[in-house]
Amino acid sequence: MMFSEYLENVRVKAPLIHCITNYVTVNDVANIVLAAGASPIMADDAGEVEEITSICSGLNINIGTLNGRTIPSMMAAGKSAMKLKHKILLDPVGAGASTLRTQTALDLLENIDFNVIRGNVSEIKTLAYGGGHTMGVDANQLDAVTEENLTSSIAFVKEFAKRTKTVTAVTGAIDLVTDGETCYVIRNGRSQMGKITGTGCQLSGLITAFMAANDDDLKSAATAVIAMGIAGEVGFSYLKSYEGNMTYRSRIIDAICNMTGEQLETMAKYEIR
Amino acid sequence: MMFSEYLENVRVKAPLIHCITNYVTVNDVANIVLAAGASPIMADDAGEVEEITSICSGLNINIGTLNGRTIPSMMAAGKSAMKLKHKILLDPVGAGASTLRTQTALDLLENIDFNVIRGNVSEIKTLAYGGGHTMGVDANQLDAVTEENLTSSIAFVKEFAKRTKTVTAVTGAIDLVTDGETCYVIRNGRSQMGKITGTGCQLSGLITAFMAANDDDLKSAATAVIAMGIAGEVGFSYLKSYEGNMTYRSRIIDAICNMTGEQLETMAKYEIR
Amino acid sequence: MMFSEYLENVRVKAPLIHCITNYVTVNDVANIVLAAGASPIMADDAGEVEEITSICSGLNINIGTLNGRTIPSMMAAGKSAMKLKHKILLDPVGAGASTLRTQTALDLLENIDFNVIRGNVSEIKTLAYGGGHTMGVDANQLDAVTEENLTSSIAFVKEFAKRTKTVTAVTGAIDLVTDGETCYVIRNGRSQMGKITGTGCQLSGLITAFMAANDDDLKSAATAVIAMGIAGEVGFSYLKSYEGNMTYRSRIIDAICNMTGEQLETMAKYEIR
Repeated sequence: MMFSEYLENVRVKAPLIHCITNYVTVNDVANIVLAAGASPIMADDAGEVEEITSICSGLNINIGTLNGRTIPSMMAAGKSAMKLKHKILLDPVGAGASTLRTQTALDLLENIDFNVIRGNVSEIKTLAYGGGHTMGVDANQLDAVTEENLTSSIAFVKEFAKRTKTVTAVTGAIDLVTDGETCYVIRNGRSQMGKITGTGCQLSGLITAFMAANDDDLKSAATAVIAMGIAGEVGFSYLKSYEGNMTYRSRIIDAICNMTGEQLETMAKYEIR
Repeated sequence: MMFSEYLENVRVKAPLIHCITNYVTVNDVANIVLAAGASPIMADDAGEVEEITSICSGLNINIGTLNGRTIPSMMAAGKSAMKLKHKILLDPVGAGASTLRTQTALDLLENIDFNVIRGNVSEIKTLAYGGGHTMGVDANQLDAVTEENLTSSIAFVKEFAKRTKTVTAVTGAIDLVTDGETCYVIRNGRSQMGKITGTGCQLSGLITAFMAANDDDLKSAATAVIAMGIAGEVGFSYLKSYEGNMTYRSRIIDAICNMTGEQLETMAKYEIR
Repeated sequence: MMFSEYLENVRVKAPLIHCITNYVTVNDVANIVLAAGASPIMADDAGEVEEITSICSGLNINIGTLNGRTIPSMMAAGKSAMKLKHKILLDPVGAGASTLRTQTALDLLENIDFNVIRGNVSEIKTLAYGGGHTMGVDANQLDAVTEENLTSSIAFVKEFAKRTKTVTAVTGAIDLVTDGETCYVIRNGRSQMGKITGTGCQLSGLITAFMAANDDDLKSAATAVIAMGIAGEVGFSYLKSYEGNMTYRSRIIDAICNMTGEQLETMAKYEIR
C-alpha cells in the first residue's frame, strides 16, 4: 500500500513547491502540481528566489528555456534549498542540444546535492558522458531503453545514480528509477504521451511534490512516475476519436486530479531489479 | 439590469487591454479577455510599454513572475496609463511571499493611481500592514474571509480601499468588492476553482476589460467578479466524473465566452453592505 | 494530391523546428508542431540560439513578446539559419503597434532572407509602408481582405512578396499566400478562430514545419494555411453548445493531430490567382 500512502501524503501535507521552470510548459506544471494536491509557486528572479525557496519544501529546477538571467537564479535557489535540506529535483531539458544546456546542467550537478534527477535517456547520457547525445528536447531513438537493452540500461542508470548520489529517473517507453541499488522498471504509460509537449516537465513537478511530502526519495520518484503513467492510460481511455494530443494533455492532468490510491495500487506495472 | 449592460458594453466596445502579466497564466488571461469580448495585448519591454499602453484603454499589471527587467516596465506603463486616464488594475500576486514582491507592489501603489486592486486576502493584508501574510501564492487559511468574520473583514477591506483610493476586490470563497463606502459581498463560485492555477489572474484580466468598457469602477469590478463566479458554477455543471482541474479551467473560460446578460442577472448571488 | 503528400512528409521526416516565440502562445505552438508530426524546440538565449538552430531544419521567429534580451537572439539565430540554408519564417506580431515591434521586424527583414512571412493584413501593411496600420495584435477592420477588395489585396500582397523575395501569407477571413507570381486565395476556416489567442502564432509554427519537410515554400505555406483552416472547421463541428473559445483552441490542435491527407484534399477551398 506504499503508493496510495505516498499519494495521500501529498494531499494531506499539500507541500509548497518552488518551480524555476521553462515558459513553454509552466502552466501545465502548475496545474499538475495542484492536481496532485500540492501547491506551486513559480519565481525565477535572483532578487527573490532564495526567500521564495525558504517558504517552500521542494524545489524543481528545469532548464527548458534557461537564460543568462535565470541560470544564476537556479544556482542560488538550489544552494539555499540545499542548506535548508529541502527536496531538490533537476530536469536537464535539452542537455546535449547546446553547450549552454549541458554546461549549466553539469554546473548545477556539481554545486547542488539533488535528491532526484529526471530526464530522458539522451539527457542523462549527456550528463554521464559530458556531452552530445541529445537531438532537440526529445530522446534520440538510438539511446532508447528497450526490452533488448534493458539489463545494460539498468546498469548504466544505476552507475549514474551512484556516482551522482541521486535518485535518477530515466523516463521513456520503459521508465527506470533507481538510487543506484534498487531499480524500479516501470511499464505504465502510452506512447502517445510523446506527442504532448511537457509531459516530462509535468512529471518533474509531480516528483518534486511527492518527494516534498514523503521521506523516501526513491519511493517518491517511483510512485510519481507510476502515477504519471497510469494517468496517461486513464486519460487515453476517455479520448474520443476526434480528440488528439491537446485534449489528451488535459485528460492526463485530470486523471492525476481524480487519481485514487486504489488505482495506483491496482494499475501499477513494475518490477524491481 | 446593470450586470447585463456592463457585459454588453465589453462586447460592443471591445476595449484593447494591455497586460503585463506572469508567464504562468498569461495564455489563460489572453483567452478570458477574448472570451469576454475585449482584446488583449501582452507587452512587457521597457522599450515599448508606454507606446503600447497608449493605444489601449485598460492596463492590467500582475506581478506573478516579476523580474528586474519587467518591474521598471510595470512602473513606466502604469505612469503613462495614469496620465492618459486609462483604467489600471494591480494584481499583487504573492505579495508577502518575498520582499521583492511586497516592495514592488507597495512601490507601484505609491506611484500609480490604480482604479482597482484585486488579490486574495493575504496579499491585501500584506499591502495593508506592509508585510508578511502570504504563504506562497495562495491565501493563508487563517486570513480567509468567512461568514464568522464577515463584518470585520468588510470593515478591513473598506478601510484599505478608502486609504488607497481604489476599488479593492478581495476574492476567495466569499468575495468582497468595495470602494470604501459600498461593499458587494459575493457568494458565487465554487471551491474547486482553487485547484486551477490562475483563476485570480484571469479575473484580474476580466475586471480590467469590464472597467475599460464601463465608467463605474466599483460596478465593473463587482460585475466581473460575479461573472467569474457564475462561470465557475456553469463550467462545473458540465464536468464529467473523469474530468478534473485542467478541463475545469477550459470550461470556466468557455462559460465566459457563452455568458448571457440573463445568466448574470439571474445567477448573481450578492448583497450590498 | 500535393496537400496529402506535403502533410505526409512532415510526419515521415519529423523535422526539428527551432522556435523563438512569445510566452503567451508558446505552449500551443509546441503542441501544434507536435500534432503535425514535427518536433519543436524553444530556445531564446543568445548563448545558445546559434547552436540550437544548427541541429534544426526550420526556424520560426515570432516577435510577440520581444524584449531587449531576445531581439539579438532572433537576429543571431536568423543569420545562422540563413547560412545553413534552413527554412526561416517571420511572424511580425503587433508590427505597427509599437515602434520597437515595427523596427525589429524591419531590421530582421533587412538582415535575414526569410522564406515565409506570415501576418495579419495590418502587420503586413505596416512592413510594406514602414509603419502604423495595426491596432493591437489583431488586424484593423479597415485593412481586412474582403471579396470586394480582393483584386487589389492580391496585387498588394504579390508586390510585397516580390519586393521582399519571400512567400508572404496574409491570413484572416480570406487568406492570401503568394510568392509574388502565383497567389493561393484560401477560404477555409471560421470567424470564431479570432476569439482564440494565438491561432496566428500556431499557424506560423505549422508553416515552418511544412517548409522544413518540403522543398517548395509556396506550396508548403499554402498547405499549412489550408490545414489550419480545415482544422478550424473540423474542430468547430465537434463543439458542444456549452463549449467556447478555450475548448475550441484544443479542438483545432486535436484536428491537426488527426488530420488525414484525404481531409486536406477534399476539404480544401481555394483558387489560384
